[in-house]
Amino acid sequence: MTSPHPTASAPAGTGVTAAGGFRAAGVTAGIKVSGTPDLALVVNDGPSLAAAGVFTSNRVKAAPVHWSEQVLKDGQVSAVILNSGGANACTGPLGFQDTHATAEKVADTLGLNAAEVAVASTGLIGLRLPMDKLLPGVELAAAELSTDGGRAAAIAIKTTDTVEKTAEVAHPDGWTVGGMAKGAGMLAPGLATMLVVLTTDAAVEPAALDAALRAATRTTFDRVDSDGCMSTNDTVLLLASAASGVAPEQDAFAEAVRAVCTDLALQLIGDAEGASKDVRIDVVNAATEDEAVDVARSIARNNLLKCAIHGEDPNWGRVLSAIGTTSAAFDPDALDVAINGVWVCRGGSVGDDRDLVSMKDRQVVITADLHAGSASATVWTNDLTADYVHENSAYSS
Amino acid sequence: MTSPHPTASAPAGTGVTAAGGFRAAGVTAGIKVSGTPDLALVVNDGPSLAAAGVFTSNRVKAAPVHWSEQVLKDGQVSAVILNSGGANACTGPLGFQDTHATAEKVADTLGLNAAEVAVASTGLIGLRLPMDKLLPGVELAAAELSTDGGRAAAIAIKTTDTVEKTAEVAHPDGWTVGGMAKGAGMLAPGLATMLVVLTTDAAVEPAALDAALRAATRTTFDRVDSDGCMSTNDTVLLLASAASGVAPEQDAFAEAVRAVCTDLALQLIGDAEGASKDVRIDVVNAATEDEAVDVARSIARNNLLKCAIHGEDPNWGRVLSAIGTTSAAFDPDALDVAINGVWVCRGGSVGDDRDLVSMKDRQVVITADLHAGSASATVWTNDLTADYVHENSAYSS
Repeated sequence: MTSPHPTASAPAGTGVTAAGGFRAAGVTAGIKVSGTPDLALVVNDGPSLAAAGVFTSNRVKAAPVHWSEQVLKDGQVSAVILNSGGANACTGPLGFQDTHATAEKVADTLGLNAAEVAVASTGLIGLRLPMDKLLPGVELAAAELSTDGGRAAAIAIKTTDTVEKTAEVAHPDGWTVGGMAKGAGMLAPGLATMLVVLTTDAAVEPAALDAALRAATRTTFDRVDSDGCMSTNDTVLLLASAASGVAPEQDAFAEAVRAVCTDLALQLIGDAEGASKDVRIDVVNAATEDEAVDVARSIARNNLLKCAIHGEDPNWGRVLSAIGTTSAAFDPDALDVAINGVWVCRGGSVGDDRDLVSMKDRQVVITADLHAGSASATVWTNDLTADYVHENSAYSS
Repeated sequence: MTSPHPTASAPAGTGVTAAGGFRAAGVTAGIKVSGTPDLALVVNDGPSLAAAGVFTSNRVKAAPVHWSEQVLKDGQVSAVILNSGGANACTGPLGFQDTHATAEKVADTLGLNAAEVAVASTGLIGLRLPMDKLLPGVELAAAELSTDGGRAAAIAIKTTDTVEKTAEVAHPDGWTVGGMAKGAGMLAPGLATMLVVLTTDAAVEPAALDAALRAATRTTFDRVDSDGCMSTNDTVLLLASAASGVAPEQDAFAEAVRAVCTDLALQLIGDAEGASKDVRIDVVNAATEDEAVDVARSIARNNLLKCAIHGEDPNWGRVLSAIGTTSAAFDPDALDVAINGVWVCRGGSVGDDRDLVSMKDRQVVITADLHAGSASATVWTNDLTADYVHENSAYSS
């Protein structure tokens, strides 16, 4: 029943271990009933432990999010432990104790400070984690740590992802940014059921890491909106070991972080649950960037349009009805909309012949010109398919 | 491929002709390619022509909405002409001329003032109406007008509705409120692709009609949110003939209007495209009614939850993650959620055994207790199904 994902093929890199100073592992602890890998460990061997993180803006936050937000406060992370097979969300004080115990176990096993161990979880909400399996799994993962373990770690954080997701950028000056991501449903603003760990061997202080990370996520992960649903567990971490000994110029570093985030974000869209189309929505000539994002998101969340895209129907009327629900500046009689480059709507009315539009390819581009300014924004989404319904009405981690 | 709608059976009444002073007709003008009825006419024979209307809040409005908003400004409507088979939205100045010509044709045929003829359209956006078929259809409809033509009119406004929708309330004091509705997709706040005509033989002035209508729609049609999509064409009209000679007390009249609106709104939900479940979301103990509505709507629009309901999975975690995206007052650790009466989430964590929840019936009730005040609100929605995707990826009117 799972649809093919033509754009979802595993990249060749090693993700979090592409940068020097990091070891990683991915093991099968038995958390998932499926018996597939479910526990990943990423360790920063330094010399620097600088780190930054962004988390879900959902007010219902999972225990590991509460924990890791605290860990990140001093900008130091020595290790990240990530499990699939359970979100540890809505599990109350006992769930928080489980997260705490997991961090302590990692610290004990590796000789670290638990207050510098971040925790991330993904899977079903409302279930306690099987700690009798998770804690021995930590020892297993610690024993497997290696400087080429990034791919195994990326595999172990998958839930409904069909492939693991990694990305790397190597800068000519001798430093690298790499990362891994998981996420195939609940993709939405404020980051949604995505777990991402980025690593770099550049020498960058926590404040600069934070600035680069927030700038990158704002226009990448925050603008991936597969199904409008926001997770309780989203976590994006950036760890810097300084192992390269190179302190990069901030702009170059921020650009590398953005490139890795863009790569991973597009991998998330390409592997979204049940999707058969990857849809890029470009809103141009908006009065402000915020309004461009609002309009793009409104289009991205229109179920009727998403069904039409699945049916390869260039239904621009549904684009206009979505734009009309926003408060952005525009004149309804001045809206232009193109689908895959054909301006099927001009001046809020019928434009070029819709039969000119080909929607056979997986990639679909919708352009909305508001004629209200010079700001623009891009949001990525997917079509809505029967396979999406199937996967999410019969979900198990 | 169309799913059965166990709750969608045609009611027995005559809808807009249940009240005295009204004639109606429904005919096949040939606007729809399917050859089914597509043109409805409702005429108020007075003695009063008092009327009120509410329209879509979408900023991209169809030509008939622009027209009818003008007609309603003086609170007088002598006739309503409604077509299915084309929304006449995003059709530019020529589309507006088509609406104008339709009203003129009705006026000429019946000896009325065109400025008192409301027009409503539903169907695909972005296509001109076939006026060579619509205008002769007006004459056909005029010839068919009768005091029991309400059912034929209700049938003629259907698009993907599987059954026509009518409702009536007869008051002991000798006056009646009746109505008809269409709408099976794009159901959302601000009224969405619903066309509704309500009639009464009570003697009520336009201002009082307007007050009763706005009070009723605010808590009925405005809280039906099948798929979060807002139409360009929504129109709800209330016409009062005063044929009963009875001037009702305002509260009793408003209550009757609300009862008819509730009845029709639930018929819309019961016949929503592809739905297999009707879902009532009760948010209780909110700080304000607006916050209760925000939370209920956020739950109603969560695609993942709607898929889970389709799969009869009492996935309360998805309810909490939806609540968490709102800015309503609540403590995440004090949220209680019941599904079909079983409090599966207590204090933001695991509550009663989810295996106690039966979701076999078409009716599903989700209750969210915010413990933040004493306000409450109810929103109705549906599950998300493969049939919904199918109907909307292969839509034709």
